[in-house]
Amino acid sequence: MKQADFISSLSAIVGSAAVLTGESAAPYCTDWRNRYSGNALAVVLPADTQQTAEVVELCSAQRIAIVPQGGNTSLCGGSVPLPQGEQIVLNLSRMNHIRALDATNYTMIVEAGCKLADVRETAEKNNRLFPLGLTATQKYCEIGGNLSTNAGGINVLRYGNTRDLVLGLEVVLPDGRIWNGLRSLRKDNSGYDLKHLFIGAEGTLGIITAAVLKLFPRPQSTVTACVAIADADVAVRLLAHVRANCGDVLSSFEIISRSCLDLVFTHIPETSDPFSKKYEYYLLIQLSDVMPGLLDEALRAALQSFGAGVLEQSVTSDADIAEKWWKLRKSISEAQKREGISIKHDVSVPVSRVAEFIAHADTSLRNTYPGIRIVTFGHMGDGNVHYNVSMPDAGLNKTFITQQEGAVNKLVYAVVRDLNGSISAEHGLGQLKRDTIRDYKDPLELELMRNIKQTLDPQGLMNPGKVL
Amino acid sequence: MKQADFISSLSAIVGSAAVLTGESAAPYCTDWRNRYSGNALAVVLPADTQQTAEVVELCSAQRIAIVPQGGNTSLCGGSVPLPQGEQIVLNLSRMNHIRALDATNYTMIVEAGCKLADVRETAEKNNRLFPLGLTATQKYCEIGGNLSTNAGGINVLRYGNTRDLVLGLEVVLPDGRIWNGLRSLRKDNSGYDLKHLFIGAEGTLGIITAAVLKLFPRPQSTVTACVAIADADVAVRLLAHVRANCGDVLSSFEIISRSCLDLVFTHIPETSDPFSKKYEYYLLIQLSDVMPGLLDEALRAALQSFGAGVLEQSVTSDADIAEKWWKLRKSISEAQKREGISIKHDVSVPVSRVAEFIAHADTSLRNTYPGIRIVTFGHMGDGNVHYNVSMPDAGLNKTFITQQEGAVNKLVYAVVRDLNGSISAEHGLGQLKRDTIRDYKDPLELELMRNIKQTLDPQGLMNPGKVL
Repeated sequence: MKQADFISSLSAIVGSAAVLTGESAAPYCTDWRNRYSGNALAVVLPADTQQTAEVVELCSAQRIAIVPQGGNTSLCGGSVPLPQGEQIVLNLSRMNHIRALDATNYTMIVEAGCKLADVRETAEKNNRLFPLGLTATQKYCEIGGNLSTNAGGINVLRYGNTRDLVLGLEVVLPDGRIWNGLRSLRKDNSGYDLKHLFIGAEGTLGIITAAVLKLFPRPQSTVTACVAIADADVAVRLLAHVRANCGDVLSSFEIISRSCLDLVFTHIPETSDPFSKKYEYYLLIQLSDVMPGLLDEALRAALQSFGAGVLEQSVTSDADIAEKWWKLRKSISEAQKREGISIKHDVSVPVSRVAEFIAHADTSLRNTYPGIRIVTFGHMGDGNVHYNVSMPDAGLNKTFITQQEGAVNKLVYAVVRDLNGSISAEHGLGQLKRDTIRDYKDPLELELMRNIKQTLDPQGLMNPGKVL
Repeated sequence: MKQADFISSLSAIVGSAAVLTGESAAPYCTDWRNRYSGNALAVVLPADTQQTAEVVELCSAQRIAIVPQGGNTSLCGGSVPLPQGEQIVLNLSRMNHIRALDATNYTMIVEAGCKLADVRETAEKNNRLFPLGLTATQKYCEIGGNLSTNAGGINVLRYGNTRDLVLGLEVVLPDGRIWNGLRSLRKDNSGYDLKHLFIGAEGTLGIITAAVLKLFPRPQSTVTACVAIADADVAVRLLAHVRANCGDVLSSFEIISRSCLDLVFTHIPETSDPFSKKYEYYLLIQLSDVMPGLLDEALRAALQSFGAGVLEQSVTSDADIAEKWWKLRKSISEAQKREGISIKHDVSVPVSRVAEFIAHADTSLRNTYPGIRIVTFGHMGDGNVHYNVSMPDAGLNKTFITQQEGAVNKLVYAVVRDLNGSISAEHGLGQLKRDTIRDYKDPLELELMRNIKQTLDPQGLMNPGKVL
């Protein structure tokens, strides 16, 4: 089939207004961080599952590769096409209907193109919580992308990753057939759990078009603490202590290094130090509950009984004060962006070993690169550290990164490996870590992944060049 | 290889005392419910993962099929060999070491042969909770079996199924290679999530030899309510109401029909009616929390604000009173066993549709079989109903079951299908539902399952005759 005929066939399925080429396709071909820019034969925006299936069937027959795309906020280049211009982008943003909400079953059925913020808002209007919470991209990302990357965020400690928030899926398979696995069941042991294969597969095994999401009781009261500490070891011990004393109401436990705050104060207006003194690390701890009453007391008591290690603390039930603290945490990505590029790591280790990770990685980097700037923050409660490295003088940074990125990664990942951690905690592999992962993952596991890929997508048409 | 040589080769790997044949093998070849009796070439009890791998490698080379077995408490004939005597039983009970417990990381690493009760007890001694709770088999079942069947039980509402309680696995693959996926990470998006393939696969894709389990804060206070209601519709609405008002401290919400209690009182000593009047249905509701204090008040307030529908209720923080109520719930299986065989169903529907399921199935059965006895109980909070059918006169029952089991199943499963439910909620498929599932599951899903089976176990040696 000639290219023009292929485009016509696509238009016949989705309508010509929903097939973008040339300049209008360009915004879909560059990633969120401006690191990857590709080219597409066309960007196709189906209106429903049936159209998606027909587009995939056509591509399968023509052996055209497909890049599934949601809000295009991948931090690993997972949702943009490769440079050669031989792939289509299949963008699901038009499939943005909430198909059903069953408050009694605590579930909702959403299409892949629903924005995460809208899903959360719809749940809230029905006195329910959809707990997936991301700091930087919540307004832009879409639930299909969250599912395909098994997104994490700030509430994983309590509610789990996106994978844990799903009861059922609808998936268009690589040959264009539709698997309807949209079951709203809490228990279903009637065969292999296929949904977990597609969740987190970054679009390499099929296209998630809809999902049954779990909802939760909506918390009515919240208490937040900002805590200053000298080192991450205190954070590790305090986390276990607060969990044991406050239980499952603990919904966030975030760590922020001083270097993060300095960047935030430089670049983000209306931000200021939480305490008059400066400290090495800060924690943001949040409890939330549907029952009113004891949270404030419980958190204060837990901090009190912890003993030495907490240098200064403030506990509040005032939403405005809490929001000021959260603004510091949520602005770190933006502040870094304004400061300039850096070498970013999204790693995880067992929660009990986060302090070791930070100490060892800091030492290793500072020995090799004296004066290096390390920006450390992340989801302490999940053992997930965002650990970003740059020169303090932004002008020297481009050269530094070009020359040293591989070496810096090696130093950091060696520590991750020692602690039996993961070099990709929540962002996925995409293009960014596709090659690197081969050095850190058990070859047997990679072999199993390749075998499954081969079984489900024998033509290799689903998001090639990503993950595997 | 001759049979005697094969047995010798097994003995060379695990020691001759750990290879059972003839009479000593027999107990391992009959299932928990005495419904399935098979024969084994040998029962092999490896001491560790390495021995397991060597046994599997030998079987793979000799094309001998393997039935992985833990505590042999499958309710679907999943853990016993087929009659022909051509398979070995690979029993993992000797692999019962707790390899590590990291209280700070809230994880423990256990071998497949650890008994569930021991896992729970070890967690408790470390001030942690491993929440998987089964009513009938907790003392006998082993964690490898729980993992392989994705066991459910009474705390799924709050903590999820076994699948949700696992961070990592060690698996011996069908060719004898060991996949070490024993990661203790809360977040790891570095490729396909392979563990979820093996969990719930009933030993048909590989042998789980060890797992990293998630632990939780250990609740310090508990409040329990026994509530009498007229019909299951009240249960559906009350559940949503209690969840919305009490939140995630709600850990159990069980439903029990009057017919269950009558059987319990007949067969189980020291049991009695919770109220002086008799009612159609009873609920057992449990909240638990690490924080002392408000549970009792919160549960009473929620029951109060619910309004009409609750006919009688009792709320207690007294462990002895609660245990008396729980004894009623936990004795149902045993009471049924003593009464005689019945046609059992382990089905699930969306939580919001449990009342419809019971009403429609009751009507359908009673129209066809006037006077039939229906024993209804289960995990209301998970939409999981144990729905068992027999003649009230135990003497007529054997004939009834022989003649009508298929017809009864069809009536019940038709209702399940109408409500988009599952014919196997928590017990799995095993031998029992292997054929039936083909009539109720999307052929495309079965095809995907078969393809995955073929990919991971091309010789078809892992627990053949089960699931697929």
